[in-house]
Amino acid sequence: MRLSRYFLPTLKETPAEAQIVSHRLMLRAGLVRQHAAGIYTWLPLGFAVLKRIEQIVREEQNRAGAQELLMPTIQSADLWRESGRYDDYGKEMLRITDRHERDLLYGPTAEEVITDVFRSNVRSYKDLPKILYHIQWKFRDEVRPRFGIMRGREFLMKDAYSFDLDTAAARRSYNQMFVSYLRTFDRLGLKAIPLRADTGPIGGDLSHEFIVLADTGESEVHCHRSLLEMSVPEGVDYEGDLQPVVDAWTGLYAAADEMHDAAQEATLGDALVTARGIEVGHIFHFGTKYSAPMGAAVAGPDGEPVTVVMGSYGIGVSRLVGAIIEASHDDNGIIWPESVAPFHVGLVNLKVSDAATSAACESLYEGLGRERVLYDDRDERAGAKFADMDLIGLPWQLIVGPKGVAKGMVELKNRATGEREDISTESALARLAG
Amino acid sequence: MRLSRYFLPTLKETPAEAQIVSHRLMLRAGLVRQHAAGIYTWLPLGFAVLKRIEQIVREEQNRAGAQELLMPTIQSADLWRESGRYDDYGKEMLRITDRHERDLLYGPTAEEVITDVFRSNVRSYKDLPKILYHIQWKFRDEVRPRFGIMRGREFLMKDAYSFDLDTAAARRSYNQMFVSYLRTFDRLGLKAIPLRADTGPIGGDLSHEFIVLADTGESEVHCHRSLLEMSVPEGVDYEGDLQPVVDAWTGLYAAADEMHDAAQEATLGDALVTARGIEVGHIFHFGTKYSAPMGAAVAGPDGEPVTVVMGSYGIGVSRLVGAIIEASHDDNGIIWPESVAPFHVGLVNLKVSDAATSAACESLYEGLGRERVLYDDRDERAGAKFADMDLIGLPWQLIVGPKGVAKGMVELKNRATGEREDISTESALARLAG
Repeated sequence: MRLSRYFLPTLKETPAEAQIVSHRLMLRAGLVRQHAAGIYTWLPLGFAVLKRIEQIVREEQNRAGAQELLMPTIQSADLWRESGRYDDYGKEMLRITDRHERDLLYGPTAEEVITDVFRSNVRSYKDLPKILYHIQWKFRDEVRPRFGIMRGREFLMKDAYSFDLDTAAARRSYNQMFVSYLRTFDRLGLKAIPLRADTGPIGGDLSHEFIVLADTGESEVHCHRSLLEMSVPEGVDYEGDLQPVVDAWTGLYAAADEMHDAAQEATLGDALVTARGIEVGHIFHFGTKYSAPMGAAVAGPDGEPVTVVMGSYGIGVSRLVGAIIEASHDDNGIIWPESVAPFHVGLVNLKVSDAATSAACESLYEGLGRERVLYDDRDERAGAKFADMDLIGLPWQLIVGPKGVAKGMVELKNRATGEREDISTESALARLAG
Repeated sequence: MRLSRYFLPTLKETPAEAQIVSHRLMLRAGLVRQHAAGIYTWLPLGFAVLKRIEQIVREEQNRAGAQELLMPTIQSADLWRESGRYDDYGKEMLRITDRHERDLLYGPTAEEVITDVFRSNVRSYKDLPKILYHIQWKFRDEVRPRFGIMRGREFLMKDAYSFDLDTAAARRSYNQMFVSYLRTFDRLGLKAIPLRADTGPIGGDLSHEFIVLADTGESEVHCHRSLLEMSVPEGVDYEGDLQPVVDAWTGLYAAADEMHDAAQEATLGDALVTARGIEVGHIFHFGTKYSAPMGAAVAGPDGEPVTVVMGSYGIGVSRLVGAIIEASHDDNGIIWPESVAPFHVGLVNLKVSDAATSAACESLYEGLGRERVLYDDRDERAGAKFADMDLIGLPWQLIVGPKGVAKGMVELKNRATGEREDISTESALARLAG
């Protein structure tokens, strides 16, 4: 993409309303613009990152055996009356009345809708287990939206729902999602820690939050140092027994600030670490909480109806854009992990009026693939170009000027490390090719 | 995907509420389920088709130079008051009040939002032209939603908006979208005819509807026979002059039923054709209708502010799923064009209890690529399997039974033509490989 044509309104000044670094950088780097309180438009650069994150989440859900569908944003209030949540949910639910005076709402989550889809279409235990998910916009009418897209009102979430015949089978589904979450956050370039979360009246140990570590994160995590160095499994066989993986990740001490246990921590000594983080996922087994009142049952092996047990598994897809920035930035701007970068390379033409320099840039632009390169072909000062490139945080910068071109050389800069080296244009093509 | 695990609830009976063939087939083939009046859940098979259509629309928008972003579903009423449309829009607009008593709405279209994004972020004529688009869910509170997703309330639309300095430049943007629409519908396996549409008080000739031909379509088209045989340009240079292409497609007589001209038709003689069709796109130049009241201007070459001229360009993405089915089906079910088929091949195991047959199927399933194959590994009667495969309409069926396997042979069936041939498993792999 040529920057001269790209819709990328970067800002030199830091917007006064932005209190946290990800919000500041998302505005400055032209990723989003606020439309109304807690409601954003994703500009092309931000949209590209959002899509890359969404795709990684999708691939890891599919790999774990979950199946994608799409439930609507607007839901019928009647289903929420069946589950008993319509009155309980409070003011965070955006309630709507249509032209025929029917009560609708903008879905803040989808347990009721998926339970309805399940009970209407699945009849037999032979069709279990099932994990169904969608990646859809949600709305929660936060009383005070803040921190940009980190605590917005309209947000993109991946929510999966599992259906099983009994608790032992539900634990297998839970473990599949647990491991797929480890894989997902790892691929996004994040270090994520699962924390045991409150299960409320359901009880049991099947509820975990996933916290991404970031120095500027919103909350504090207390955990065993080894958790920070634990490796995420690759080439997972999701049909196999995942309990050992889950046990390894949940066997070490880890707690959110409000749940931490000073006595237990005292026994850890030097192994205790406190770190800051951001919640990006939550997995939760809730048994028959929705299936019982809503009548979601299948015929069991003996023909008798069995109320299915369920779990839900959320990932904040739009929130992850902010979380990644909180985890990966410096004073000059964003540092995108390669897996989510909107472009792989930023190509900087230092002198667009020089025919040889522009010819070299065009050749690199074509050679590296137009879709993978953001080519700064603007007639701007070099300093402004460098500042914009650092701000938007593409993994690699390729800097092309008249002096280097005369010798067949360009400068390659790694955004994360700041390392620069002079290399030939041929090497640049070879090093950065897709 | 193994059908034994796939969430594909097909129906043997035709649902009574479905009045048109696409609605009947979408319910029977397990593509969608109604959630509330005019609001649908897209089940995995339907969702896969929707995504394929969306991706083709996206690719052709990008190719034409449009840039993708994403505006929110929930919009501020204040912007619609600025444009003057808040009161005009009537009951089709889903109006919402949030917890702080602010007026919101579920966007039925996005002229106001994009004009606001533009005026806040674009300053100079040098940044023009710009075509910005998104693919986002819309809501129109139809008084009587019907025909399944063809006239639903929550629907997926691609809407693009062009910004230009003057009408001559706007015509270039218009032509880019015009040609990209021809390309889009062609890639979707559809025959589409552009019809001149009413421009209302704006005047001029820059408004066209695109009608997809289908014998079961909702409306009647009168046109010159040559339009049905005109070839869609390939390898388009969108920077070049597209006027000759647009002229070729708009120079021949074509009119919707309510606009047709009997006198002009009389002169056509045998060249006149009447056909049925479905509207799937609309492109429209509207000048300064929104930019003037909303103050969307840029500094012109002389430094003086110039109010930009705009156009909008819509494609009904979810509606296209229905339109494709209306255009391509038979008594047994859907016939997906290859470009949008949810799977390329349906692999039918005629005897899952036979080890050799199942081994051959597994080998074909792996060899053809699990993501491109729907493998019917259920323990069902052959007749039921054939009926389901015809119903869901994958382009190719590969039928594997014990007798053939003993000779190393399988049966290949083309869904569209019904042609069957016996071929070796090796040939099947070679013929159907990705």
